[in-house]
Amino acid sequence: MAASNERIREVVEAYVSLIAGGTAAEIVDLFAEGATVEDPVGSAVRTTREEIAAFYGTLEGLQQETRLIDCRIAAGEAAFLFEVRTITDGGTFTLAPIDVMTFDDEGRITTMRAFWSDTDMSVG
Amino acid sequence: MAASNERIREVVEAYVSLIAGGTAAEIVDLFAEGATVEDPVGSAVRTTREEIAAFYGTLEGLQQETRLIDCRIAAGEAAFLFEVRTITDGGTFTLAPIDVMTFDDEGRITTMRAFWSDTDMSVG
Repeated sequence: MAASNERIREVVEAYVSLIAGGTAAEIVDLFAEGATVEDPVGSAVRTTREEIAAFYGTLEGLQQETRLIDCRIAAGEAAFLFEVRTITDGGTFTLAPIDVMTFDDEGRITTMRAFWSDTDMSVG
Repeated sequence: MAASNERIREVVEAYVSLIAGGTAAEIVDLFAEGATVEDPVGSAVRTTREEIAAFYGTLEGLQQETRLIDCRIAAGEAAFLFEVRTITDGGTFTLAPIDVMTFDDEGRITTMRAFWSDTDMSVG
């Protein structure tokens, strides 16, 4: 049976929160074995836990704030708009991707695809 | 070569606009031959032009307003949040789905999947 909408919502909220304040290991724990990450859509798909951990590891040193703007869930899949603000000495970089995720029956992420491009990034 | 981001943006804007004010035939014209429509995600996938036309035909009699809220485009695919307000004697029904679309090289829609559920509908 597909994970409930409530369970998927919890995982999406945990994911967005961990992007700002979590470790790569905590983020990877949200993913199922064999999960894949395509961020952004069109880039090389990360297919191993090591690749996924390395990808999220690049966020660990950054000062980031995130918020979930809108989330739609249907039939064990989610699409959600969220904002990531990265605060640096050179300014604040803001990006609001739309991520699409599928989940296994326990609500672990099985695929993640992030829709955004360079032109969606703003600096303030 | 994949359709440009500008071309895809135009098609998304046309789609959202036609949901409010277009005919089923005008909407179907945005789709490639062999296109599929899954609305909402998890429902039966419409695979023929007749099925797709019948689906959008149900909107023709309604008084609707739409607006594109946010759109992200990457590698010939789009994910976008838009709002549909349906005005009836019984009130105004508002739904803001996130749609995910793929496109052929000319920017015709090849697949459409709409993320929303009944709980995302509000009545005012």
